[in-house]
Amino acid sequence: MAVRAAVAGASGYAGGELLRLLLVHPEVEIGALTGNSNAGQRLGALQPHLLPLADRVLESTTADVLAGHDVVFLALPHGQSAAVAEQLGPDVLVVDMGADFRLKSAADWEKFYGSAHAGTWPYGLPELPGARAALEGSKRIAVPGCYPTAASLALFPAYAAGLAEPDAVIVAASGTSGAGKGPKPHLLGSEVMGSMSPYGVGGVHRHTPEMIQNLSAAAGEPVTVSFTPTLAPMPRGILATCSAKAKPGVTAESVRAAYEKAYADEPFVHLLPEGQWPATASVYGSNAVQMQVAYDEAAGRVIAISAIDNLAKGTAGGAVQSMNIALGFAEETGLSTIGVAP
Amino acid sequence: MAVRAAVAGASGYAGGELLRLLLVHPEVEIGALTGNSNAGQRLGALQPHLLPLADRVLESTTADVLAGHDVVFLALPHGQSAAVAEQLGPDVLVVDMGADFRLKSAADWEKFYGSAHAGTWPYGLPELPGARAALEGSKRIAVPGCYPTAASLALFPAYAAGLAEPDAVIVAASGTSGAGKGPKPHLLGSEVMGSMSPYGVGGVHRHTPEMIQNLSAAAGEPVTVSFTPTLAPMPRGILATCSAKAKPGVTAESVRAAYEKAYADEPFVHLLPEGQWPATASVYGSNAVQMQVAYDEAAGRVIAISAIDNLAKGTAGGAVQSMNIALGFAEETGLSTIGVAP
Amino acid sequence: MAVRAAVAGASGYAGGELLRLLLVHPEVEIGALTGNSNAGQRLGALQPHLLPLADRVLESTTADVLAGHDVVFLALPHGQSAAVAEQLGPDVLVVDMGADFRLKSAADWEKFYGSAHAGTWPYGLPELPGARAALEGSKRIAVPGCYPTAASLALFPAYAAGLAEPDAVIVAASGTSGAGKGPKPHLLGSEVMGSMSPYGVGGVHRHTPEMIQNLSAAAGEPVTVSFTPTLAPMPRGILATCSAKAKPGVTAESVRAAYEKAYADEPFVHLLPEGQWPATASVYGSNAVQMQVAYDEAAGRVIAISAIDNLAKGTAGGAVQSMNIALGFAEETGLSTIGVAP
Amino acid sequence: MAVRAAVAGASGYAGGELLRLLLVHPEVEIGALTGNSNAGQRLGALQPHLLPLADRVLESTTADVLAGHDVVFLALPHGQSAAVAEQLGPDVLVVDMGADFRLKSAADWEKFYGSAHAGTWPYGLPELPGARAALEGSKRIAVPGCYPTAASLALFPAYAAGLAEPDAVIVAASGTSGAGKGPKPHLLGSEVMGSMSPYGVGGVHRHTPEMIQNLSAAAGEPVTVSFTPTLAPMPRGILATCSAKAKPGVTAESVRAAYEKAYADEPFVHLLPEGQWPATASVYGSNAVQMQVAYDEAAGRVIAISAIDNLAKGTAGGAVQSMNIALGFAEETGLSTIGVAP
Repeated sequence: MAVRAAVAGASGYAGGELLRLLLVHPEVEIGALTGNSNAGQRLGALQPHLLPLADRVLESTTADVLAGHDVVFLALPHGQSAAVAEQLGPDVLVVDMGADFRLKSAADWEKFYGSAHAGTWPYGLPELPGARAALEGSKRIAVPGCYPTAASLALFPAYAAGLAEPDAVIVAASGTSGAGKGPKPHLLGSEVMGSMSPYGVGGVHRHTPEMIQNLSAAAGEPVTVSFTPTLAPMPRGILATCSAKAKPGVTAESVRAAYEKAYADEPFVHLLPEGQWPATASVYGSNAVQMQVAYDEAAGRVIAISAIDNLAKGTAGGAVQSMNIALGFAEETGLSTIGVAP
Repeated sequence: MAVRAAVAGASGYAGGELLRLLLVHPEVEIGALTGNSNAGQRLGALQPHLLPLADRVLESTTADVLAGHDVVFLALPHGQSAAVAEQLGPDVLVVDMGADFRLKSAADWEKFYGSAHAGTWPYGLPELPGARAALEGSKRIAVPGCYPTAASLALFPAYAAGLAEPDAVIVAASGTSGAGKGPKPHLLGSEVMGSMSPYGVGGVHRHTPEMIQNLSAAAGEPVTVSFTPTLAPMPRGILATCSAKAKPGVTAESVRAAYEKAYADEPFVHLLPEGQWPATASVYGSNAVQMQVAYDEAAGRVIAISAIDNLAKGTAGGAVQSMNIALGFAEETGLSTIGVAP
Repeated sequence: MAVRAAVAGASGYAGGELLRLLLVHPEVEIGALTGNSNAGQRLGALQPHLLPLADRVLESTTADVLAGHDVVFLALPHGQSAAVAEQLGPDVLVVDMGADFRLKSAADWEKFYGSAHAGTWPYGLPELPGARAALEGSKRIAVPGCYPTAASLALFPAYAAGLAEPDAVIVAASGTSGAGKGPKPHLLGSEVMGSMSPYGVGGVHRHTPEMIQNLSAAAGEPVTVSFTPTLAPMPRGILATCSAKAKPGVTAESVRAAYEKAYADEPFVHLLPEGQWPATASVYGSNAVQMQVAYDEAAGRVIAISAIDNLAKGTAGGAVQSMNIALGFAEETGLSTIGVAP
Repeated sequence: MAVRAAVAGASGYAGGELLRLLLVHPEVEIGALTGNSNAGQRLGALQPHLLPLADRVLESTTADVLAGHDVVFLALPHGQSAAVAEQLGPDVLVVDMGADFRLKSAADWEKFYGSAHAGTWPYGLPELPGARAALEGSKRIAVPGCYPTAASLALFPAYAAGLAEPDAVIVAASGTSGAGKGPKPHLLGSEVMGSMSPYGVGGVHRHTPEMIQNLSAAAGEPVTVSFTPTLAPMPRGILATCSAKAKPGVTAESVRAAYEKAYADEPFVHLLPEGQWPATASVYGSNAVQMQVAYDEAAGRVIAISAIDNLAKGTAGGAVQSMNIALGFAEETGLSTIGVAP
């Protein structure tokens, strides 16, 4: 018997992608769909690619509407999940696709988000050491940020294997859907097509502490992260170019071996054959992470590059993957490693 | 028990899209994959988005390799299918995604393709009147061209209902994948990004006689077609803007009624609510046709606009849909009306 | 001695493009720059590509600020120009880049714009018959719409030469800058990249009556226009595919001859050699119109296709060209037929 | 009296951009245009955006054709310039837009290019310390690579001021025109639109030793460079995200001051106001470098990000700028800091 899932924030990009995935999930039945400014509108007008749901009408995001579901996905702006979550009972699986419950450090939360810390939930990046165990049976899941997903998966094997010095440099390019559906002038097609531009430079991007949290845990020592996000002229995808100085004694072989070992049994992380590099186009619409790693001997650095779909594995796909674990479904249920290309 | 399908031309865009669809088709098992210049290569190097098939190796396109399958898909350059097809037995379902068997008129074939006509197979556009019956149980299918799919579905209801004069004007924009994977200078990203350009203007495009064939059959009289294809800066998608002078007495209501009737029971053709217009982004990766129609009273024309994914419904999805009919599967098996957006 | 020009609406796309052109115009000195919601801001923050003006600060759009200039360009939303223009003296050259003074028919204005008609000014498309004479010495100029520029130049030679029946079909693709800088959800990069979509279908687009006005004048009889604009995934450019049924006796040669004659001496309209078709990329940033024409004998239609830069020849370049004529400068002063490609 | 310039390699992207610039250069007259495989063709068919040169016909690249010019620009594949250059007399200014004469180290040349080193010419990046003096009156100029232009200008002030440790990390995104006009499958529009992908990872890209050469000279000590180029879905532009660990005692103020000092008098390098970050769209078609710098205290790194047009300042604009210096023209002659946007 299928679980019944509600989606709060069904009119945005994360909500739309989640619905795209839930529509083909064999264990899930789609229940209430909510939005706030869009309540009362047909989903067909807001998400015209989701034809099977075209005649569904958005409701308001209230406790009443969200009640009576087995799972509630929250695809809300940062800072709004906590208030909704506390109105949901302890037996409902709540999957927060926002940032509210990702960080362990209240100080980091306050510094980067400027409000009171709501708490910390099991972190939905199953590939990290220990993450699966925390997710199994959990009723609360904090879905990681899209950049931290790409960057943490790229670098944690190097840290876990003791190959890298604790100073990571991460430069990532993201498609525009990562910035959401709110109409802002710098996100207009006229502005983004033909343009690459950085933002949140110098350690101020909110995903920075989340990367530090993940990589420090893998390294067993504090890792600093220099993170520069850039906006790329494409709708989806993250390409994360990540590097760190190699520890003494590192070789190309030891680097390769660490990544092969880390990802040998992972269903969604695909270490490419040597010489082939990832492209975001190859994971378009897919839950796969394509990855390659190299050791630059002259520069003395380990370089790992990952490509993900920011809305799929980076948000909604990651959410479904963690939901599967929490509910005891096979982890790959309803998810795919097949991209839509070209 | 699943049918076993071979794909000849698995390294190109049509072949890749077909594999993407067959991978999730519950009744099909993927057999031999062939290519010519690429024989011997890993599919992972050629179609990096198809991770489950990454380790498959392309074979040569020979009768031996293609033997022993229930279905053989031919995704070959125009003019090459006939030679391969005649080596396959009469009990094998052969689905030709090229042009070789689409046209009924040998004269048209010779004029537009410059070679001898190979014959005519049942035409794989099930939405056209009588098409399904011809496909049921057939062992040979000619998959329509991508432009004729978009344009014929846009205009045939107007012709079938006797609403339009027999002079159609079709201007269609196609994504670049329609031009194939062969590297030509004008298809370079540097050339196509930021550019719209026409080609094959003035009735010389090879899809013109196919449109004429379809629309004339619907109208019951010869229809002329002025067809202008344009290359748009996007990887996939066709937007076909189609119009014809309205016959006397036509009204907005009679136009709407004709399209509602034509597509009421079609699983893949979606007539949008009045006032909403199709966008290629909404059918990205999907087998859906999104459509809208209007009557411009001042200009006296019926205007129908359709959006399809040229590789999906326009090629590989159409091929699977017709295969389903031919083999007696439910028509929607393995196909979806859900697009990947944004 | 240079003329002094003010630009009202300097923060938008039309205003920005105008400034780009005026910066290299040898006879113009840039005076006041105004904006309303952006008054007080540095131009460097709003138009970061115009480095020589980066430190200029926008003022409010008031009669006082605009006073004391030889030329005032109005790059304002439709309907706002008339109020500003009447505060400017009769000796000031006022160039309206909005729609307010384009239409001769008050009834058309009221039908399409829903307000009172402000009047009709000399029409700034110098290539049309009689247009240059009306512009010489004029103190008021109505700059044409971008679509009417592309479509009128494509079709008027056919009408002027009596080659085409009075029923034109125009399907045009425009870059997103044509929709302006106001942030609307459907103009987000996430929405437009990878997507072609129509809008204003069925004769309701406001540029329709302007096309009818131009083509009817050329034909000497009323011409109907079926106009379908589409939004293309590129920042700039219009590709207008225009056709009409040929009158009896028309031949490919007579069509070619009419266009060669019409454009033999035009500095900005370039009829391409036979067989070469225009691309918007070739006119990016340029004031050129690239054009090709064909006669489709089977369909009995004349097809003319033009490519322009909607912001350059389609708006700001056209404005400068007409200003040059009005002020007695050489028509090509400060303008270029060189595009930026690829 | 204008100097007469020949362009060898006029059919490619670098050659086309050079012609675009020379067409508006007041001191240059365009002489012979050569190509090899394209000899005999009209330039209008190869560079349709350069209308004033449309009827020019390409000649073969021979010493005879190139003779009798004051300046010869070589826009040839790497390794072909030396053979042509030695046939040109010592009084002709030869500007090599290829790599042949950029590197000082013969060992580096041989390692990265696999052929014999042809020599070292004055390096055409005038903003580097000492570069202008070497260019003045020189008859030979080696135009820098596009990535080294962007990266060296981003980081040399930090090294020259002693602010950065000698281990630079450079991740740069380039438009596809940087990969040239030769049709290769991975450069097809279908492949690049919607995709970010790295290449030449791990220190193997040929621009790496050139960056090391420039930054080491600025630092006065050997600098290692970890360089990762990525291909971005846009025709033009480079965004270079460059960082290095800060030396002890560095502050945000000392970093800012170093860059303000380095670029105070540079006509083409524009350090943006604090808080504003560069975008490649802002330098489209312009010779400007837009730059911003930050000090990330938590990560202990100086981060400098530059945006250039790879074909303009990164190749052809840089070539003209250096030619101006060599011939004693004002450095800005014929060049612009105005971009074409949006």
